[in-house]
Amino acid sequence: MKDPKYALIIIDMQNDFVLPGAPVCVAGAYATVPCIKRLLDFFRTQRWPVFHVIREYRADGSDIELTRLDGFLNQKPYAVPGTEGCNIVAELTPVEGEYRIIKNRFSGFMNTELDFMLRRIGATHLVICGTQYPNCIRTTIFDALAYGYPVINITDATSAQTPQIAEANITDLRNIGVECVTLQEFLESGSVWK
Amino acid sequence: MKDPKYALIIIDMQNDFVLPGAPVCVAGAYATVPCIKRLLDFFRTQRWPVFHVIREYRADGSDIELTRLDGFLNQKPYAVPGTEGCNIVAELTPVEGEYRIIKNRFSGFMNTELDFMLRRIGATHLVICGTQYPNCIRTTIFDALAYGYPVINITDATSAQTPQIAEANITDLRNIGVECVTLQEFLESGSVWK
Repeated sequence: MKDPKYALIIIDMQNDFVLPGAPVCVAGAYATVPCIKRLLDFFRTQRWPVFHVIREYRADGSDIELTRLDGFLNQKPYAVPGTEGCNIVAELTPVEGEYRIIKNRFSGFMNTELDFMLRRIGATHLVICGTQYPNCIRTTIFDALAYGYPVINITDATSAQTPQIAEANITDLRNIGVECVTLQEFLESGSVWK
Repeated sequence: MKDPKYALIIIDMQNDFVLPGAPVCVAGAYATVPCIKRLLDFFRTQRWPVFHVIREYRADGSDIELTRLDGFLNQKPYAVPGTEGCNIVAELTPVEGEYRIIKNRFSGFMNTELDFMLRRIGATHLVICGTQYPNCIRTTIFDALAYGYPVINITDATSAQTPQIAEANITDLRNIGVECVTLQEFLESGSVWK
């Protein structure tokens, strides 16, 4: 088997989901920013590909998930292009050469160009982090496995509303064959699949 | 059967594909602009939904079709966001309330949010036009049929490199059950499926 070509996928680390007090803040997300930044810096140093997978919703609600539609329209909209809340958190702002992928559903693969691009650039293995575990992280990871990409999930770069929810998801992910490791473990191993 | 709710889908009417002399101009496309504009005005008057389905390619070629990659990278890029060529032709510029859908492959449905949105707004029938017949028009129409949307194709608002190619595609589309009619026929019938 030839050497893996890693791609980093950072999910939904936008102000509206991350900053304390934001409309749909995931409680554990802000604390992961420094860890994600170290992981991102590692990929940048290696010159390995980076995908920032984010949400954008049209303001009329025509493309949001059904279960979120009412709150979005009648309480508080979020992830609307052109708003500050939609932006990726400042610490993780994409640099030249990194890709932004907009998704409208939980999985970063569902009706997006992500898989087209991973194939084109020859990525074989995915490192996935971001927020939040039970929804977008997990769904993206399961689709990655379904498409044939081995996945490493960086546990301290991934968040949920509570540690219990995170732990329950990590258990399920490990049981399906995902490498769930800390950033330190990932950086030290360097060869998880070799 | 309840009344149909029509949506208009205009495909790839961007400067790079339409303006004479543009990098990848479709020979028949520019001549259809006035007809598409009349169709668009009709939908605007009716307040029926409009989708401008367009292409955008990242400048490094990471998301373009394989068969176009070499020409795109080594001869002339096109449909790159931020360039004038990527813009929809001036006469058909979207107005507030109309949707822009970016596709990376031939079909407007493939790995895009188009079907999510058609379902959400309750569109039941599609009117499809734009360029060009053998590729994006035809592929989008076949996917529309596959998803269960009856399709009207406006023949004088749709183009190809030659009239012969257009005719051959219209024959195939009619044989599969697509209503291929002129704009005048469409406007006069008003009730093609009733």
